Amino acid sequence: MQPLSEDPTEKTVITFGEVMLRLSTVGHTRFTQAQQFVVNYAGAEANVAVSCSLFGLRAAHVTRFPDHDLGRAATQALARFGVDTRHIHYGDERLGLYFLENGSMQRSSRIIYDRFDSAFANIRPGEFDWDTILAGADWFHYTGITPAISQGAADELMKALEAARKAGVQISGDINYRRNLWQYGKSARDIMPELIALTDFVVAGQTDIENCCGITGRNYEEACQRMMKEFPAVRKIASTERTSVSSSHNRICGMLWNGKALLKSKEFDLTHIVDRIGAGDAFMAGLVFGFVTGRTDQDALEFAAAACAWKHSVDGDFNIGSVAEINALVQGENVGKLLR
Amino acid sequence: MQPLSEDPTEKTVITFGEVMLRLSTVGHTRFTQAQQFVVNYAGAEANVAVSCSLFGLRAAHVTRFPDHDLGRAATQALARFGVDTRHIHYGDERLGLYFLENGSMQRSSRIIYDRFDSAFANIRPGEFDWDTILAGADWFHYTGITPAISQGAADELMKALEAARKAGVQISGDINYRRNLWQYGKSARDIMPELIALTDFVVAGQTDIENCCGITGRNYEEACQRMMKEFPAVRKIASTERTSVSSSHNRICGMLWNGKALLKSKEFDLTHIVDRIGAGDAFMAGLVFGFVTGRTDQDALEFAAAACAWKHSVDGDFNIGSVAEINALVQGENVGKLLR
Amino acid sequence: MQPLSEDPTEKTVITFGEVMLRLSTVGHTRFTQAQQFVVNYAGAEANVAVSCSLFGLRAAHVTRFPDHDLGRAATQALARFGVDTRHIHYGDERLGLYFLENGSMQRSSRIIYDRFDSAFANIRPGEFDWDTILAGADWFHYTGITPAISQGAADELMKALEAARKAGVQISGDINYRRNLWQYGKSARDIMPELIALTDFVVAGQTDIENCCGITGRNYEEACQRMMKEFPAVRKIASTERTSVSSSHNRICGMLWNGKALLKSKEFDLTHIVDRIGAGDAFMAGLVFGFVTGRTDQDALEFAAAACAWKHSVDGDFNIGSVAEINALVQGENVGKLLR
Amino acid sequence: MQPLSEDPTEKTVITFGEVMLRLSTVGHTRFTQAQQFVVNYAGAEANVAVSCSLFGLRAAHVTRFPDHDLGRAATQALARFGVDTRHIHYGDERLGLYFLENGSMQRSSRIIYDRFDSAFANIRPGEFDWDTILAGADWFHYTGITPAISQGAADELMKALEAARKAGVQISGDINYRRNLWQYGKSARDIMPELIALTDFVVAGQTDIENCCGITGRNYEEACQRMMKEFPAVRKIASTERTSVSSSHNRICGMLWNGKALLKSKEFDLTHIVDRIGAGDAFMAGLVFGFVTGRTDQDALEFAAAACAWKHSVDGDFNIGSVAEINALVQGENVGKLLR
Amino acid sequence: MQPLSEDPTEKTVITFGEVMLRLSTVGHTRFTQAQQFVVNYAGAEANVAVSCSLFGLRAAHVTRFPDHDLGRAATQALARFGVDTRHIHYGDERLGLYFLENGSMQRSSRIIYDRFDSAFANIRPGEFDWDTILAGADWFHYTGITPAISQGAADELMKALEAARKAGVQISGDINYRRNLWQYGKSARDIMPELIALTDFVVAGQTDIENCCGITGRNYEEACQRMMKEFPAVRKIASTERTSVSSSHNRICGMLWNGKALLKSKEFDLTHIVDRIGAGDAFMAGLVFGFVTGRTDQDALEFAAAACAWKHSVDGDFNIGSVAEINALVQGENVGKLLR
Amino acid sequence: MQPLSEDPTEKTVITFGEVMLRLSTVGHTRFTQAQQFVVNYAGAEANVAVSCSLFGLRAAHVTRFPDHDLGRAATQALARFGVDTRHIHYGDERLGLYFLENGSMQRSSRIIYDRFDSAFANIRPGEFDWDTILAGADWFHYTGITPAISQGAADELMKALEAARKAGVQISGDINYRRNLWQYGKSARDIMPELIALTDFVVAGQTDIENCCGITGRNYEEACQRMMKEFPAVRKIASTERTSVSSSHNRICGMLWNGKALLKSKEFDLTHIVDRIGAGDAFMAGLVFGFVTGRTDQDALEFAAAACAWKHSVDGDFNIGSVAEINALVQGENVGKLLR
Repeated sequence: MQPLSEDPTEKTVITFGEVMLRLSTVGHTRFTQAQQFVVNYAGAEANVAVSCSLFGLRAAHVTRFPDHDLGRAATQALARFGVDTRHIHYGDERLGLYFLENGSMQRSSRIIYDRFDSAFANIRPGEFDWDTILAGADWFHYTGITPAISQGAADELMKALEAARKAGVQISGDINYRRNLWQYGKSARDIMPELIALTDFVVAGQTDIENCCGITGRNYEEACQRMMKEFPAVRKIASTERTSVSSSHNRICGMLWNGKALLKSKEFDLTHIVDRIGAGDAFMAGLVFGFVTGRTDQDALEFAAAACAWKHSVDGDFNIGSVAEINALVQGENVGKLLR
Repeated sequence: MQPLSEDPTEKTVITFGEVMLRLSTVGHTRFTQAQQFVVNYAGAEANVAVSCSLFGLRAAHVTRFPDHDLGRAATQALARFGVDTRHIHYGDERLGLYFLENGSMQRSSRIIYDRFDSAFANIRPGEFDWDTILAGADWFHYTGITPAISQGAADELMKALEAARKAGVQISGDINYRRNLWQYGKSARDIMPELIALTDFVVAGQTDIENCCGITGRNYEEACQRMMKEFPAVRKIASTERTSVSSSHNRICGMLWNGKALLKSKEFDLTHIVDRIGAGDAFMAGLVFGFVTGRTDQDALEFAAAACAWKHSVDGDFNIGSVAEINALVQGENVGKLLR
Repeated sequence: MQPLSEDPTEKTVITFGEVMLRLSTVGHTRFTQAQQFVVNYAGAEANVAVSCSLFGLRAAHVTRFPDHDLGRAATQALARFGVDTRHIHYGDERLGLYFLENGSMQRSSRIIYDRFDSAFANIRPGEFDWDTILAGADWFHYTGITPAISQGAADELMKALEAARKAGVQISGDINYRRNLWQYGKSARDIMPELIALTDFVVAGQTDIENCCGITGRNYEEACQRMMKEFPAVRKIASTERTSVSSSHNRICGMLWNGKALLKSKEFDLTHIVDRIGAGDAFMAGLVFGFVTGRTDQDALEFAAAACAWKHSVDGDFNIGSVAEINALVQGENVGKLLR
Repeated sequence: MQPLSEDPTEKTVITFGEVMLRLSTVGHTRFTQAQQFVVNYAGAEANVAVSCSLFGLRAAHVTRFPDHDLGRAATQALARFGVDTRHIHYGDERLGLYFLENGSMQRSSRIIYDRFDSAFANIRPGEFDWDTILAGADWFHYTGITPAISQGAADELMKALEAARKAGVQISGDINYRRNLWQYGKSARDIMPELIALTDFVVAGQTDIENCCGITGRNYEEACQRMMKEFPAVRKIASTERTSVSSSHNRICGMLWNGKALLKSKEFDLTHIVDRIGAGDAFMAGLVFGFVTGRTDQDALEFAAAACAWKHSVDGDFNIGSVAEINALVQGENVGKLLR
Repeated sequence: MQPLSEDPTEKTVITFGEVMLRLSTVGHTRFTQAQQFVVNYAGAEANVAVSCSLFGLRAAHVTRFPDHDLGRAATQALARFGVDTRHIHYGDERLGLYFLENGSMQRSSRIIYDRFDSAFANIRPGEFDWDTILAGADWFHYTGITPAISQGAADELMKALEAARKAGVQISGDINYRRNLWQYGKSARDIMPELIALTDFVVAGQTDIENCCGITGRNYEEACQRMMKEFPAVRKIASTERTSVSSSHNRICGMLWNGKALLKSKEFDLTHIVDRIGAGDAFMAGLVFGFVTGRTDQDALEFAAAACAWKHSVDGDFNIGSVAEINALVQGENVGKLLR
Repeated sequence: MQPLSEDPTEKTVITFGEVMLRLSTVGHTRFTQAQQFVVNYAGAEANVAVSCSLFGLRAAHVTRFPDHDLGRAATQALARFGVDTRHIHYGDERLGLYFLENGSMQRSSRIIYDRFDSAFANIRPGEFDWDTILAGADWFHYTGITPAISQGAADELMKALEAARKAGVQISGDINYRRNLWQYGKSARDIMPELIALTDFVVAGQTDIENCCGITGRNYEEACQRMMKEFPAVRKIASTERTSVSSSHNRICGMLWNGKALLKSKEFDLTHIVDRIGAGDAFMAGLVFGFVTGRTDQDALEFAAAACAWKHSVDGDFNIGSVAEINALVQGENVGKLLR
């Protein structure tokens, strides 16, 4: 559906994870003032799929929705941006959701999650036929949110990783440690290491690394070195580094450890932030795009950091932006101009 | 807060039940088209409390909310209309919610419920101190939804009824049978009879009576007669009778069996319906107001039926209308006029 | 500005009266639910001017506004539709305003006026140079609202009528009796008769005639006959006749007594009413247009009644409709069709 | 994407035609009052594709868009509802558009077209590879709008029909005569007959038949008989019959001539109309669904008429409705009920 | 209604003053562009009451409203946030109102007041029973706006202060000098000194002190010293200090003279301002909360300054913020973070 | 209509150029996310006319619109702000339009033009009677956009300039080179020089000068000197100088070469930009106002630069601002204050 990308590739990315209904307050409204909630359907992995699709890759998302109109609407939200939705399953449970109060100035944004017992959480072992889904795929992406949701989701993710490994598909994992999840009896330390052991490319901050693997270091570089030692499959580790002046003003850059050097991207000064949710997923999609299309580490990192910065200017979780637009931002071209 | 009622009474009504976040589509939008959901906080019993408060009664609502800003917003939604919210408890669980797609023309309205495991459902036995809450009260109102939610809610309701009975408080129950609830192991037939046995005033249609008590009849009157025989505490049984031409056009009237005769109210032709949700609760509130202020059966019924009709013209679950306005509609005064 | 009318005339209409800020609730919202008010600037006489301008006549409105941005906005609201605003004066007082709650179904529309001590009410004697304003004009229109506002407004209106009479300008007056006004010490009976004595064309219902002139009759025709007897200058008397089934459903037709016969127009069945405010002014403008362009009494009446019916489909006080559109409605052409 | 249909079929429908940007006024607003236009992307043939997709068929739409973000948005609007957009081409010209003023009451809806020189009008001969597109398809649908747009569009449509015929694909054509188009030098009478000669199933009213083929009759049945005689390929001819009480109130039914009898569907009384645009396309999609899934003529006609009625309750051109919902309306089940 | 405050106190605050209807333009819209006005009900003293209630104090507001639905809506706006509205009186006059045009960038915000002859201005001597109202109260708060409105309001305020003094209730007064008020024949210098003489705690800038008491000084400290000398009841004087870079960017801090030292709070850099109206009242409420709960002067001042800063991020006049949120801002915790 | 300007002049400005329908996305929405487009009617020259009218000058705009309701709406948009619309012609073609995606942060604003074959482009030679239009006028303004649209527009503009010259009317031209226009066979270099030769006052940046006249220079001053040498009629050349930090943050100042010196205005730091479209026209209107009312070069430039800065805070193309407001900004008074 995106034949318009300047350089569409024939590469295929598969993502797997929960998609939730995001209900966000309008403008600067607080929860207790809300007369309406804005509707978005989003999830960390699906956000990556949408962005990859808009970058010209083939992307398919695998998930499970309730068998009612909110599930259908969620599917349509992905299909709209060209994501292949054929592998989505439908069942009887609820759609996970979260409420978002947009912060302003010194006031922080707040999220109230309401995602337990969702259709995704109730995935039964063997629900998806991964060999079929992954046939012909180039890349598989997951996050650390999925195994934190339920035993079924964790088990299914492990099956997916094994199938991907077997099929020679590259695997990326965004560790994304969430303290509030992991309520089904397992901890991140119980599960994450065996998933990471099958992963080629990890996105994780230093605290993620500590929380999920128990690996520490005097700095990010040392933590990465130790992680690679423990997980020989891992070839690259990346992260964003964010400074919050206020809810309306952040600074962000990207870092990547490729086993030899800690690369750093240009830093972006993000004043007048529109919507920061999904910026990490935009970074992730930028990396996937960069690597799957054969960019150098530094180029992929610069592209990913610019994608991350760009996302802050777009409403919703999805990073509506093209390769041409992100490239221009990498080059510093047309920034803030009026393009006629 | 409503010192403006033409005839404020000193009577006090206590209601008990779940309040949910209602998320409704805008205008005629379908679920899959929704960009925004309109926010209301409502529940069958709370709707009665709000309407009673606007009629000049003292009203207090008892419920349990999650201890976060959506719970606070729900409390504020009741407090705004003068309902006493001091007895509301707060805990750690989620807020029940439901999604509403407004029907139009031949297309029906649809509701998707998402209310399991709510803060209300997790009421623990003895959570509320009913003797204190009911001190000085004149009326207690419940619906058949509450015992359908969880064992805890059913138990707590029984405690409330026993306390009310002991304190000489009048009790009304709107049977309101909901097939989709009753999922915790008990059926309506298991629980409802012992609640009805303590109830003075019942609102129930013929199928409600059958579903909850196993009582049938050749017609409504016969069913009522048999119900009264089986439940000697019950003194009056009422119901609305609705004819649906389309989602935009209904006809409605009220019926009341007082042990001697089946009274019928004027019928209202409801074209151009704005929002029918809560119309039954508006009818209920009209009856409570009528009886607690000493109207005759026929007058109370006419007032309740007019309140029910009026509700169809008001957005949201709450019946925003005053005694003067409902009285005028009973009299057929000013209908459709421009009042300067 | 309306060179597009199929048959623009060179006739000029002058109107005089207060323009208020109308603050109306959105959709079916009640006053106590209102989060926003929709802004319109309107007044009975200015509504006539706007409609005449859209019918291709030259129209100028004379009024007085406060000297701040709301006054400027009111002027702009008239200028936008081609009304000549050169004669508007500006002073230090407030802008009169009114709040409108749109009725629905059996629930009536409600207006809360807040118009005392406005810039218009504070017109000082001799404020306007009527000889200049009326030079070259063909028609002058006023309503009974103006003399009800203040002594200054009543005096200025009398000056205008005398100047119009002197200049041979046709005069129309819409009696429009408002019980809530007339608070400055005079009653309608004190003032209206001397204004009517200078009027060629009167719009008044039977109760208006009684309230303002003390003239009664067994029916409208008799009241008109007696009125003409008492006021020999009056040559025609017209009125609309409205039946309110509900706020959403009215029926309306026009009547005109021309001294010989009581003419009746086609009746319009108005279901799904959008906005009835200003419908009387639309009727008035239809009559002015009909007479100033030389239509027969029956034709002018049919045009005016159709204009009145049309207005019910248009948001706001102004009747946005062209001569071609109103003519088509008179002919029953294209009613409810999709015009491509 | 619609695995949820109760009975998804493996049938594939291909549609071909222009998709325009529809800019409609909000609510009852007139063009000259519009502060905002609501955005929809729609076209007669694409509307059929979307509805077929929501009915569980595989549907692909073929068209040509400008190579900018409005073209991309139009593609996404189709993809969202599961329509296959792989065959869409992109070029340098503009996107056709139309402005819609929603009528109300006696006031008609109005459309201002602005569609000349669009990317679709500039289709070059041989632009699409019809053999590939039609491979495996079961049905091809076009309308009489396409050949009216430009010579290129007319030529390409002929190529498509020839390819479909060759491939044994069923062909439906909705004649849909538009007086304002046909501006490139050819008339409907020049072009339509040769297209109809290749068509199995025609939707056309009596005036369409006369305008496009010069065939008249004393009634619809006679016109259909004569048409079939002249065009032996045509096996069925259908039409809707609409009575307009007002813009808010129509009555509609369907008719179908199958060579033997003139079948009539149930008539629907459509009060409180939400949006009638696309109702004819909803009827068409109902017929396609009915025939491709093997319903009887009468059943297909009832389904199509109910689909057409249902569309009036849905905002936008697309008929958002499922087979289950339309079936229920055919059966008269749940009409106007509140479905929990 | 705020049992959720981390540390609810049993302290009670009484406020007295006018509540107006605030009509503000949407977003960056200018008055002459406004299609809608956003509705808020607010007043300097009621703003303090609402904020105190949200901080967990008991708060009651005393005022007078017109006896129509706008008065009721104003009452409900206070009740919603837990403010006790039992002491509000209702009468026949209008509701004061003000129009707000939100400034942006270098363009200033503008207010047009329309508050004369309001229900509050027409308070009659002895209207309120202060002994009953103040029974059990800990704090009474007023502003210099009330005595500027009318002689009746000034007299009633004096009665309130005398009753408070008698009852041993702490008194705070925010001088808040308004040049445009004071139109009933008295000046601030005539009235304010006798009110200040009964006040324990004063909020006033240096120009307020000069305008109301004729007291000058080389700097704020000196002016405070002289004021305390002249008004021995006054124990503390505080003020905010605001630097306006633009409408979107201010800097603010708080100062407090406690008779011994001039304390200063942290300064906040306020970029991306959402709504600055009511920030002074938020500061005031912070001080009331701080002192009534026994914080030290410096702690109370820091809390108040942070409350003031926080308010700039919240739409409307009310400071929607909890003690926990303000405390976190004082500590610099979580500023601009995404709180999950 | 603007008798409220502090110093209304009797000067008359005539502008000539296309007015388009601007369709802009809401808030930060991208084109592909747009559910609605905001409606504005605007054009470079008409923007100048509106601003001049709001500054108290008499302004008339000359253009050509399609003869349908969008043309009428465009006329009304100008008339609303007091612009004389009597000279506007109407014909059969379309209204030019453009789509605007508001940029945010590092993301640029984007415009998609759709203006070919408009009613304006189809101006026929001699369409307007310039002698009549210019009678009594003081100033005529055009831009380099008009001759770029079509041969007819270019020819008509030349006729206007000749008539203005003959009538002794001052002429200003804003060169405004647009690469995407000039598609009818002529280039800017073919046409612009003969227009500039008749122009007194030119607004042009250095690249405009090069693109339209082939004149280069080491800096702006030298380019201006050479331009004046080649075009002796030109007496002053001005331009704005913009630095884009991001879409939300620019810096701007004005420059003016008066034949002797290159004057520079104060620079404005424009954070939190609301809408930059039309800022150049606001600058132009400021210069016209300054010169026609006899300000010095430096004063006119400061006023124009402040007008340009002010525009960035106003939604839409029109610079809603008064002389008093712009003067205050020149003086640095009240910047960012709350004006009660």
